[in-house]
Amino acid sequence: MRFKGHLVAPGPTEVPPDVLLSMAKSVPHHRSDDFIPLFEKVREDLKWLFQTKNDVLILASSGTAAMESAVSNFLKRGDKAIVVRGGKFGERWAEILSVYGCVPVNIDVEWGKAVDPSLVEKALKENPDAKAVYIQASETSTGVKHPFKEVAELVRERDGTIMVVDAITALGVFDVQTDEWGLDIVVGGSQKALMLPPGLAFISVSEKAWKLSETSDLPRYYLDLKKEKKNQLKAQTAYTPAVSLIVGLSKSLEMLKEEGLENIFKRHRILSKGVREGLKAMGLKLLAEDSPSEAVTAAICPEGIDGQKVVKYLREKFKIIIAGGQDRLKGKIFRIAHIGYYDPFDMILTLSAVEMALKDMGYEISLGSGVKRAMEIYWEAMRDGKG
Amino acid sequence: MRFKGHLVAPGPTEVPPDVLLSMAKSVPHHRSDDFIPLFEKVREDLKWLFQTKNDVLILASSGTAAMESAVSNFLKRGDKAIVVRGGKFGERWAEILSVYGCVPVNIDVEWGKAVDPSLVEKALKENPDAKAVYIQASETSTGVKHPFKEVAELVRERDGTIMVVDAITALGVFDVQTDEWGLDIVVGGSQKALMLPPGLAFISVSEKAWKLSETSDLPRYYLDLKKEKKNQLKAQTAYTPAVSLIVGLSKSLEMLKEEGLENIFKRHRILSKGVREGLKAMGLKLLAEDSPSEAVTAAICPEGIDGQKVVKYLREKFKIIIAGGQDRLKGKIFRIAHIGYYDPFDMILTLSAVEMALKDMGYEISLGSGVKRAMEIYWEAMRDGKG
Repeated sequence: MRFKGHLVAPGPTEVPPDVLLSMAKSVPHHRSDDFIPLFEKVREDLKWLFQTKNDVLILASSGTAAMESAVSNFLKRGDKAIVVRGGKFGERWAEILSVYGCVPVNIDVEWGKAVDPSLVEKALKENPDAKAVYIQASETSTGVKHPFKEVAELVRERDGTIMVVDAITALGVFDVQTDEWGLDIVVGGSQKALMLPPGLAFISVSEKAWKLSETSDLPRYYLDLKKEKKNQLKAQTAYTPAVSLIVGLSKSLEMLKEEGLENIFKRHRILSKGVREGLKAMGLKLLAEDSPSEAVTAAICPEGIDGQKVVKYLREKFKIIIAGGQDRLKGKIFRIAHIGYYDPFDMILTLSAVEMALKDMGYEISLGSGVKRAMEIYWEAMRDGKG
Repeated sequence: MRFKGHLVAPGPTEVPPDVLLSMAKSVPHHRSDDFIPLFEKVREDLKWLFQTKNDVLILASSGTAAMESAVSNFLKRGDKAIVVRGGKFGERWAEILSVYGCVPVNIDVEWGKAVDPSLVEKALKENPDAKAVYIQASETSTGVKHPFKEVAELVRERDGTIMVVDAITALGVFDVQTDEWGLDIVVGGSQKALMLPPGLAFISVSEKAWKLSETSDLPRYYLDLKKEKKNQLKAQTAYTPAVSLIVGLSKSLEMLKEEGLENIFKRHRILSKGVREGLKAMGLKLLAEDSPSEAVTAAICPEGIDGQKVVKYLREKFKIIIAGGQDRLKGKIFRIAHIGYYDPFDMILTLSAVEMALKDMGYEISLGSGVKRAMEIYWEAMRDGKG
């Protein structure tokens, strides 16, 4: 059987044809009038997405570089910072801090659980000199949503401590109120809800964070945010920007604005609920039962079934790309994304593929049981949404 | 909810990205070396698809023009021809014949049923002067497959009677052995299993048919097949060809050849079976129960549900395009296509959409019942196909 293929991984995600086409038309020169107004518009639209009046800087990099810049531009060698470490990306914050000679104070959270804000409160009390709190809004490796709004409240009133949020799989998925909730630094990436290929990262920086950056002594060159800000305020970039991705970004932001933040959040709520309920109806347990992210759902593999093999089965037999587990979760889970350019039918077909794969791998399942449950969720939601 | 949209109608059908891209690159001039070798290759590949050594002519037109040319190039004013009239496209044969002053001898078949070959045998006996038999291989309006191979056997031995097959939704779907089965004229179109936009038609002509054409006196200019043949043998066309569609055709034939005829037929067999069984598991009756075409399935609407409204619901709520009934079947059926660029997941998502629509329109259905049955069919077929 010839399969068409579907990409249902938590990044890179599917890119809409209109965005692909916009990028295929031409590559304007970045110092030309073909590009500068577009760059200015994109920067304004990003503020809308980040819900902020802060500048949002655009980097030609993956999200990890923006995470690195959120350390190297703000801290000093030897500075302490609280890290919520509940997955692969929490670990990344700690790794970056260590590389720069800073001291991560790790709050280790069981993978699959959200951090308890009181643990952050305790860590802040025990480390009054901590310069920052680093957290994921959505921990992509486990499918957990951390209570970053509650954590931000703890940081807000502290002079000299900034709240840094990796929102790479949260922006354009669920509510991230950068200004209202006092998120000093928010990091995003292109290949997630922004429905673009990889290659762009975004970072918003508050006044409080810029103030802290004045005392920073860590080495940085390409990721020098002050230099970027100076340039980007003049619709330039310090170094050559990823022009075609920014052209695509202009289109994808247009699509998102047309849909509206509330509708975007609602879409992800409904899609993720259908997937979670569908997986449970198949008899599977979810890794992030208590505080699931609307970006991605991680299912725990049944006894005797290797998650990597589920991923491989879907890829090789059906050309459907989902994600496996990373590091300590490798083989133990598989992950279905609902972040970005998806609708209920993408979820239904992905669940049907998972059911067929699991059955073929020996799991006892009545075909259609997960799909049926997801259909019920989507049907109810669509009826409610009638007008 | 923002839906992405799916096209699941029996033509135009979905066009694969690789084909769209091939057509977007450039438009070669049709008398240039950029085009001529490609045109020659396409004509060879069409012979493969038609399973014939006859010439296959390419027309810049919809399929209907090729049907018209299959009358206007072969018959004389006043000629009789047998027409199998079991749907909208059977009627079209009769209409074309009448317009040209020929005399259709109609075998009226209940819409949804296949013709009984013995009726054709009887008509041929009663009309020994009939110059042709006109039939659909796949009657798109009802989803019926006619026994055109058996009918061809009746025509084969008769000097001066040709067998004309509208295979517009049959070519590249199920077996159409032009030479082996003695099909004198076979008509195809681009926007079906060939996975192209509309705008091209194809017609293969046997020696027996060319002989008949010598006595034809019907008026024709644009659709003069003899003139086309003369040109196309030299890799030219009588009039300007639809260049970009032929470029796309080159790509789509490449994809089909890579898959192979047997696999193509098998794919359509499996996809259509899943849809038929899925619809039946929803409690629906099929229009073409006895002799279903693997191109399209027509479901009879339940009591009190208007087929046009099902189509409208899917289009407006889900951006999914299926087809309704035509003429006397309007409102009574809806049709799901499986012809062309589809895989089991397209069918699963379409069935799920139909279930949700029917339920919302008041039909008693346990959501997932049709999808479940289709999944079972696809799962079995895929297991069988392993190795």
